[in-house]
Amino acid sequence: MADNIHSTHQGLFQTTTIEITTGSREVALDITDRCAAFLTERAAGCDGLLNVFVPHATAGIAVLETGSGSDDDFLATLRELLPADDRWRHRHGSPGHGRDHVVPGLVAPHATLPVIGGQLALGIWQSVVLIDTNGDNPRRTVRLSFFG
Amino acid sequence: MADNIHSTHQGLFQTTTIEITTGSREVALDITDRCAAFLTERAAGCDGLLNVFVPHATAGIAVLETGSGSDDDFLATLRELLPADDRWRHRHGSPGHGRDHVVPGLVAPHATLPVIGGQLALGIWQSVVLIDTNGDNPRRTVRLSFFG
Amino acid sequence: MADNIHSTHQGLFQTTTIEITTGSREVALDITDRCAAFLTERAAGCDGLLNVFVPHATAGIAVLETGSGSDDDFLATLRELLPADDRWRHRHGSPGHGRDHVVPGLVAPHATLPVIGGQLALGIWQSVVLIDTNGDNPRRTVRLSFFG
Repeated sequence: MADNIHSTHQGLFQTTTIEITTGSREVALDITDRCAAFLTERAAGCDGLLNVFVPHATAGIAVLETGSGSDDDFLATLRELLPADDRWRHRHGSPGHGRDHVVPGLVAPHATLPVIGGQLALGIWQSVVLIDTNGDNPRRTVRLSFFG
Repeated sequence: MADNIHSTHQGLFQTTTIEITTGSREVALDITDRCAAFLTERAAGCDGLLNVFVPHATAGIAVLETGSGSDDDFLATLRELLPADDRWRHRHGSPGHGRDHVVPGLVAPHATLPVIGGQLALGIWQSVVLIDTNGDNPRRTVRLSFFG
Repeated sequence: MADNIHSTHQGLFQTTTIEITTGSREVALDITDRCAAFLTERAAGCDGLLNVFVPHATAGIAVLETGSGSDDDFLATLRELLPADDRWRHRHGSPGHGRDHVVPGLVAPHATLPVIGGQLALGIWQSVVLIDTNGDNPRRTVRLSFFG
């Protein structure tokens, strides 16, 4: 702990961007491993906070269970709450694309999460998930920042 | 505590977990007092940020008025937006339990809030509220982290 | 400012409140310029995190595209998801005002965003937006806190 305590005295801030291939359809993409790899490299076993931020206007960051249907359930919920129909004032891009711009209002593009000993202190069933309903944009950037 | 207090001037990070009894029905539980007690003990009168994080996949952290109906209104909204019916792919647990796993998509399991002079800088009508629609899980952990 | 710059190496925390005139109808108000002005004055070219917090129980902070209809689309979505009718238990103020108290459950009153070189690292189409559906309260306070 002596080294950790030493670095806390200097407010370690580490930031990077990673590229994510989301493809041409809506996705709930588990990026927990990418967050963990960043922390392994940059957090140096320290405690602090990880800020996950997606700098796009049609995406969000959620913390969900993945792999047992809930990721698809969440995308289905967003389809129902924000239908891809002609109600939207924002009319660029694919039909119904206006809904994609409302997604970050309900699923914020940022999450700030505790890090203990260089690892995300997630619950056993939690994953960090990039929500992207916008199939027109197959590649996304995510910014990861550690403050320890 | 002497060492911790010393480091407050240089980037103090303090973290702990607290246990919350949520019982067997859905709840919007005011945990502001628990947050305040943590800050009294650990923030030592400093400015900074409090991160409130619930490490469970069927719960969220909201900031709401409590005690005048809005907490119940919010639970009713979640029942309407996320009905406990058979639409969910995630099918473990009680009937309709799949909805509980979608809750954190709309009510994120984290909140990062300003602390001034060791106290949460909340508005007069704001409370920190644990949202938990999952009656199958009567006890919950919440992680509180102060960064000052 | 020299003292502040000195303290960046030791966990600079700067906080202030700004006043926003929201008027008497629901708004999605772009406050990105106000955030940028704060960072210019207080972040001193540093990296870190900006916490944006609205200390009111009927408002939220979203990150959205503005100026091309999506801000209005989001307010329309909130009108549909949270109708201003008589369903709400919270019954003070204007008819349907109970909905305003549910807004922060879906649109959290806080956002924590990365700052690089003293500037918000937003995507090109992203703005920080104050969501306020409560026309009874024409002036609002927003707290900006930089941690670098």
